[in-house]
Amino acid sequence: MYYIGIDLGGTGMAAGLVNSEGSIIYRNAAPTGPDMPHEDLLNQMAALCDDIVEKNAISYEDIEYVGAGIPGAVNPREGIIEFTSNLRFKNVDAAAFMKNKIPVPFYLDNDASCAALGEVLCGAAKGKSSAVMVTVGTGLGGGIIIDGKIYSGAFFGSGEVGHHVIVSGGKKCNCGRSGCWEKYASATAIIERAMELVSENKNSKIYELCGGDINRISAKTVFDAYDANDSCAMSIIEEYYTYFGEGLTNIINIIQPETIVIGGGVSARGEALLIPIREKVRQMMYGITELKTEIILAELGNDGGIIGAAMLAKQ
Amino acid sequence: MYYIGIDLGGTGMAAGLVNSEGSIIYRNAAPTGPDMPHEDLLNQMAALCDDIVEKNAISYEDIEYVGAGIPGAVNPREGIIEFTSNLRFKNVDAAAFMKNKIPVPFYLDNDASCAALGEVLCGAAKGKSSAVMVTVGTGLGGGIIIDGKIYSGAFFGSGEVGHHVIVSGGKKCNCGRSGCWEKYASATAIIERAMELVSENKNSKIYELCGGDINRISAKTVFDAYDANDSCAMSIIEEYYTYFGEGLTNIINIIQPETIVIGGGVSARGEALLIPIREKVRQMMYGITELKTEIILAELGNDGGIIGAAMLAKQ
Repeated sequence: MYYIGIDLGGTGMAAGLVNSEGSIIYRNAAPTGPDMPHEDLLNQMAALCDDIVEKNAISYEDIEYVGAGIPGAVNPREGIIEFTSNLRFKNVDAAAFMKNKIPVPFYLDNDASCAALGEVLCGAAKGKSSAVMVTVGTGLGGGIIIDGKIYSGAFFGSGEVGHHVIVSGGKKCNCGRSGCWEKYASATAIIERAMELVSENKNSKIYELCGGDINRISAKTVFDAYDANDSCAMSIIEEYYTYFGEGLTNIINIIQPETIVIGGGVSARGEALLIPIREKVRQMMYGITELKTEIILAELGNDGGIIGAAMLAKQ
Repeated sequence: MYYIGIDLGGTGMAAGLVNSEGSIIYRNAAPTGPDMPHEDLLNQMAALCDDIVEKNAISYEDIEYVGAGIPGAVNPREGIIEFTSNLRFKNVDAAAFMKNKIPVPFYLDNDASCAALGEVLCGAAKGKSSAVMVTVGTGLGGGIIIDGKIYSGAFFGSGEVGHHVIVSGGKKCNCGRSGCWEKYASATAIIERAMELVSENKNSKIYELCGGDINRISAKTVFDAYDANDSCAMSIIEEYYTYFGEGLTNIINIIQPETIVIGGGVSARGEALLIPIREKVRQMMYGITELKTEIILAELGNDGGIIGAAMLAKQ
């Protein structure tokens, strides 16, 4: 039996034919955009499914169901896409729409939740009962797994770990609050801090690495300068580790999952990122207690969303 | 059938005979203290059970089990008391000890978790599937209920909501971190802030209400001065509401429970506390989303711990 997983995003959608072991054996994709009507987006998803069936010389009878990860607020129980910030969905009954387009069941959930499920069922946290996945990129996303299943919260809005305030009265966040973890622990946070400091400190290696154009600074630029012992980069990254560790410790003190899985662009730094982060968290653990939650790297990368979506009904 | 619930504390233990409706129909209590050996504490718990059976002219055959709420780290699966900060327990197999003392099963869990369970099964959050109970007193404790059951975390250490940092680099907390929510949203936080401000501002109504002795300031003193429109008290309480709301919003953004139950000494202020707090949280909700989690007052008061402990095996 096969499954189709679809990872819907603001600029494109990626789909995959997934086998029972959770491996993607065929892929296709299509562009998306903020101006596309939601009917076109859903029709495009159905067209990717049709293409998968056709290109693999199988029939829909070989597909158990289609699952989709949606970048926004959804009601997975009813199959409703309530709201997406970058695509045109507002209270769309996607399940009812897809019922007329594809002859197999259609499930959906939040994309970060799908990625977390993928890691728990087929990736870094395989076999773990509870996990929080933290995706560190432009923003800071989260997905929570409890008892091997996606935990969506009472109203399908949990897991917004990037939007918990760690610096009361701090930097203004797009969510409307000030001092959210995302403003201090995302890749964007590293870049913004570097732009602030480097414009006053042109001797920094960061300035050299970005060719004197601070708009070209990436998180990698700052980590590269850090590895070259640049003092400006070292102060940025040390501060970053502290904030990163503070948010992770908050999650542990509140939820205490078995595992925290770190994914997203910044996680490409690998163990060089996790070793100092784990040490920060250890120092912040409650009283005499030891750090029992393991903090590990995601394994599935961008495939996690497709695989998790394909596994939605296997929880 | 009856149940016995025991609420163990640093200065006393309170026990109750609880009926199937979750009402306490007989109570007794005994003192405790930091110097009592753990055997004495457990023997005292058994003695309270014997007294309950005797005084109510029933036998242990009428008691389904005994449950106990423990102020510390426990392993409820194994019946082990791992650590208590105010009593002498360190990795004590309480279940094995009690097996030789009382002829019915003995269960235990963390006291804050028991109080949360009590509110969900028999109190303010009756019938709710998920809830976080926040107890606001000297400290700031928490208990989490998911799917109607205590959620203890992967290693029985979740729910430490008071020890999530909301002010990075802020006030030093006993847990070892700086800027924990407890340092800004407990009754102690109100008192400490008032002591700071009033010593420089003797015109404040707070100074009058405490008879010129700032060591006599309580949270109630500050709320009383607030109600009398004292400007110093108003600034303390407004700031307090903001911090309180920030922590609650963090919990909602991460866990999004159906209900948050507020208990402990500060909750005696009732709706006068919750109305401004709910408004703060509403203003802090993520983007366009509405506040769906209800924020309500605990109903069981100090009985919640006994009732929840008595309901431990009814989850």
